[in-house]
Amino acid sequence: MRCRTIDVCQLGMHRIETMRLSIVLFDGFTALDIVGGYEVLANVPGIETEFVAAEIGLVNADTRRLALLGYRSFMQIEATDILYVPGGPGVFKGVRDAALLSVISRLHTTSTWTVGICNGVELLGAAGLLQDKQVTTNWFARAGVSASIDASLYLAGLVAGAEIAKTIQLGIEYYPDPPFGSGTPDSASPTAQAMVRMFEQSAEERIEALKPPY
Amino acid sequence: MRCRTIDVCQLGMHRIETMRLSIVLFDGFTALDIVGGYEVLANVPGIETEFVAAEIGLVNADTRRLALLGYRSFMQIEATDILYVPGGPGVFKGVRDAALLSVISRLHTTSTWTVGICNGVELLGAAGLLQDKQVTTNWFARAGVSASIDASLYLAGLVAGAEIAKTIQLGIEYYPDPPFGSGTPDSASPTAQAMVRMFEQSAEERIEALKPPY
Repeated sequence: MRCRTIDVCQLGMHRIETMRLSIVLFDGFTALDIVGGYEVLANVPGIETEFVAAEIGLVNADTRRLALLGYRSFMQIEATDILYVPGGPGVFKGVRDAALLSVISRLHTTSTWTVGICNGVELLGAAGLLQDKQVTTNWFARAGVSASIDASLYLAGLVAGAEIAKTIQLGIEYYPDPPFGSGTPDSASPTAQAMVRMFEQSAEERIEALKPPY
Repeated sequence: MRCRTIDVCQLGMHRIETMRLSIVLFDGFTALDIVGGYEVLANVPGIETEFVAAEIGLVNADTRRLALLGYRSFMQIEATDILYVPGGPGVFKGVRDAALLSVISRLHTTSTWTVGICNGVELLGAAGLLQDKQVTTNWFARAGVSASIDASLYLAGLVAGAEIAKTIQLGIEYYPDPPFGSGTPDSASPTAQAMVRMFEQSAEERIEALKPPY
């Protein structure tokens, strides 16, 4: 096994071979779905991260106030080791986007890990990946937006060992301490639940109505 | 007070006037410093979010594998309500960047809230803002990368009321549950601490050596 980061080897840490992490962008993604996991996984020694999109260029988040660059096109990418599919209101359209579903399906046949965050899991389902029982243990179940950090620390531990994952956790000083305890339907007020339901139900038309200021 | 989002008004929630949130981009920022806070604050009804940079265009994160679009230039922006300054290895250069410090200093005179995340606080200090005792209660102390979510939920509560903040927390389903307890120096192993120190000390030269693949 070749050791990419000599410092890591010298410290006697778990070593991994170079792995490719491909984060899929589509119009209307939720940025924290991506960046929570990216911040963990892109810092794993040996992981080479790339942002892929239907075409090379900017892709707008659900707020239409944030844009990320996709610099590898679906056409250009033949294989990956970790396929990372975020969620967001864009998923409503995404499940009817043949090019998006096709690249997910195609890359999944090459990946060691396929990660769906939040309703990104619906894209995996629409791409026909969730019927294969033999890979169900590789999936993160439907999880909250911010759970991409937790999920990716878990994955970092699997691919690079717990010591690397813990080091990254210290590196991002991840010791969450929410000022409110309202992160789950069980703990949230009925009003908050009603608001979120309303916002989620109207998400597709809301993002269509929002014009980017750039 | 004008009510921007009629649904919010109808539900009798705390209402806020439109506020401008200006997120400052500079070469070598840490993406999670930005997106954790952005995801909370950009979803507060009435907050209008913008990404500002020295010049309009893409700005590279510390990994050189993620690029965000800055679509308002320092020249174009005269005032803001919430000035949001992330951290990252780029801060090492940033504290010597006169244009960056100048825009921070200038916008701070107009802002109601000025937020420094992680070592972004050093930029605030270099811009001369931390000597003014009368605003020290408005600052978030040096905090971990991922603390931008916690800090921004707290700020959302201050500007829009606890009900809105709790609703957003439910919306992003933020109920963190790290798989490891290694988020602080106290809880991390000596090896993890040594690794992070080594990586942080070499951060400036590492990001200089990394070339974006786009």
